[in-house]
Amino acid sequence: MINQLVKKIEELKAPIVVGLDPMLDYVPEQIKEKAFSEYGETLEGAGEAIWQFNKGILDATSDLIPAVKPQIAMYEQFGIEGLKAFHKTCAYAQEKGLVIIGDIKRGDIGSTSKAYAVGHVGKVQVGSKSYRGFEEDFVTVNPYLGSDGVKPFIDVCKEEKKGIFVLVKTSNPSSGEFQDQLIDGKPLYELVAQKVAQWGEEHMGDSYSYIGAVVGATYPEMGAALRKVMPKNYILVPGYGAQGGKGSDLAPFFNKDGLGAIVNSSRGIIAAYKQEKYAKFGPEAYADASRQAVLDMKEDLENALVGR
Amino acid sequence: MINQLVKKIEELKAPIVVGLDPMLDYVPEQIKEKAFSEYGETLEGAGEAIWQFNKGILDATSDLIPAVKPQIAMYEQFGIEGLKAFHKTCAYAQEKGLVIIGDIKRGDIGSTSKAYAVGHVGKVQVGSKSYRGFEEDFVTVNPYLGSDGVKPFIDVCKEEKKGIFVLVKTSNPSSGEFQDQLIDGKPLYELVAQKVAQWGEEHMGDSYSYIGAVVGATYPEMGAALRKVMPKNYILVPGYGAQGGKGSDLAPFFNKDGLGAIVNSSRGIIAAYKQEKYAKFGPEAYADASRQAVLDMKEDLENALVGR
Repeated sequence: MINQLVKKIEELKAPIVVGLDPMLDYVPEQIKEKAFSEYGETLEGAGEAIWQFNKGILDATSDLIPAVKPQIAMYEQFGIEGLKAFHKTCAYAQEKGLVIIGDIKRGDIGSTSKAYAVGHVGKVQVGSKSYRGFEEDFVTVNPYLGSDGVKPFIDVCKEEKKGIFVLVKTSNPSSGEFQDQLIDGKPLYELVAQKVAQWGEEHMGDSYSYIGAVVGATYPEMGAALRKVMPKNYILVPGYGAQGGKGSDLAPFFNKDGLGAIVNSSRGIIAAYKQEKYAKFGPEAYADASRQAVLDMKEDLENALVGR
Repeated sequence: MINQLVKKIEELKAPIVVGLDPMLDYVPEQIKEKAFSEYGETLEGAGEAIWQFNKGILDATSDLIPAVKPQIAMYEQFGIEGLKAFHKTCAYAQEKGLVIIGDIKRGDIGSTSKAYAVGHVGKVQVGSKSYRGFEEDFVTVNPYLGSDGVKPFIDVCKEEKKGIFVLVKTSNPSSGEFQDQLIDGKPLYELVAQKVAQWGEEHMGDSYSYIGAVVGATYPEMGAALRKVMPKNYILVPGYGAQGGKGSDLAPFFNKDGLGAIVNSSRGIIAAYKQEKYAKFGPEAYADASRQAVLDMKEDLENALVGR
């Protein structure tokens, strides 16, 4: 799946992943009205609204992008009905040929991490049959519990030719509180990155590992340092756009081959129609606004990579 | 809710939480057969089997225990159908008057943590109405992202009079890989514990804070040190029993008032009938075996606390 991701990034010239993190506030009124008229102002109605919203964006952008990254929390907040919308979104993105990075940030003790891995990127056994609980190709994993919380994901990914992105340096303002603390002169995030490089060797694709890392666009200097620590690991870069990361900040996350990083934008794309820049599209054409935002992001990244 | 938890622990003389972490392997054949005959060997059948299994245990133990801790991964592995069983289990435990600690180990950037908090311990807004996605009283939270990944949980918990347990030192073998690393001479877990103490002051109950910590029974010396760093924070102690923690290891986790800690046992209770010690109950009476295991654990803890 990492080979497929790299191939798609090269073909489309778009190291871009669209974060499908729908808030109900982002969903245009016409979609909410339709969903609520059918299911009422209920959790089911909310699930239907975000699913229809996502479907529109997928229909409008899937030929431009290699991957989507649904953030499961945005679905989980609506309980079971929200998670049904998550599942539907992943299945539809898969039909469209997209690589699905489930942003689930799970991680637990060994036996529990195994259950998460089986549910999200593997198959669960029920008597003599086996099933997929959810349909993702990659998931994000929290490293706080150490190797035995990460290894079960790697084991399942080996069987399935799928992968993970381990949180190394996250994009949020207080990420440094623990992640930047110095251990023998090196920040914790670098120690985690060294482990990611090591875990990555266990599960290599053609040129990159199936085991990647998350490093926030909001910390470009750290991105440059971490790029060197993890030369064979893909870096998933959140924080571009709405969180403050700019195209020009992103060059350090890439290798000299122009590969090695995939940049996420969520709000900046899925709620593009709410920005002044794309206001001309209006809520009815929200998906066209998203398409334009993808094209603009692609150009921004191309300039950043050419200009370095 | 922390006041209620403390009160129940005192009344029942049982600082015990039963981990509802059902693997299909734990579920006696008669329950699986019934579920599969009704729904087939499907995800729905698996969900039904684990729900019926849990119901039996809840019916047999709820008068003895203050709380249950369902581990969401064990349900999530079966996809939507598993999560329905999680939801049903929480709702039934609530009917039985139990405090529900959702072992979800979530944690993300601010806006995303807020969605998790809203979904698990708060209410989500849908148009003019609001709903609970899941029914938990406490949830476990991963601190790797720092304060702004934890604060949204605290904010929602303040509104709802609910609480969280933050991962400090986990029970698994490799937990030391990152958590034990020294920062200015102090391990990372202690730095996290200091933050927990600080966050805890923001949301105090009568004698203990709504913000607790997770510290594994498998690390009793660290438990003693952390008890002092977090005198007002309840410690949720996993790792007793099947993971290797013994009753005699647990005294250091408690304060002099005999309070301040709640010890989890999962497999040791819910799959008790599989142990030689409780084999006489047999699979038919698995829930009675669980009841006996709770009584034995209660005695083990009483001895540990009296003997210190």
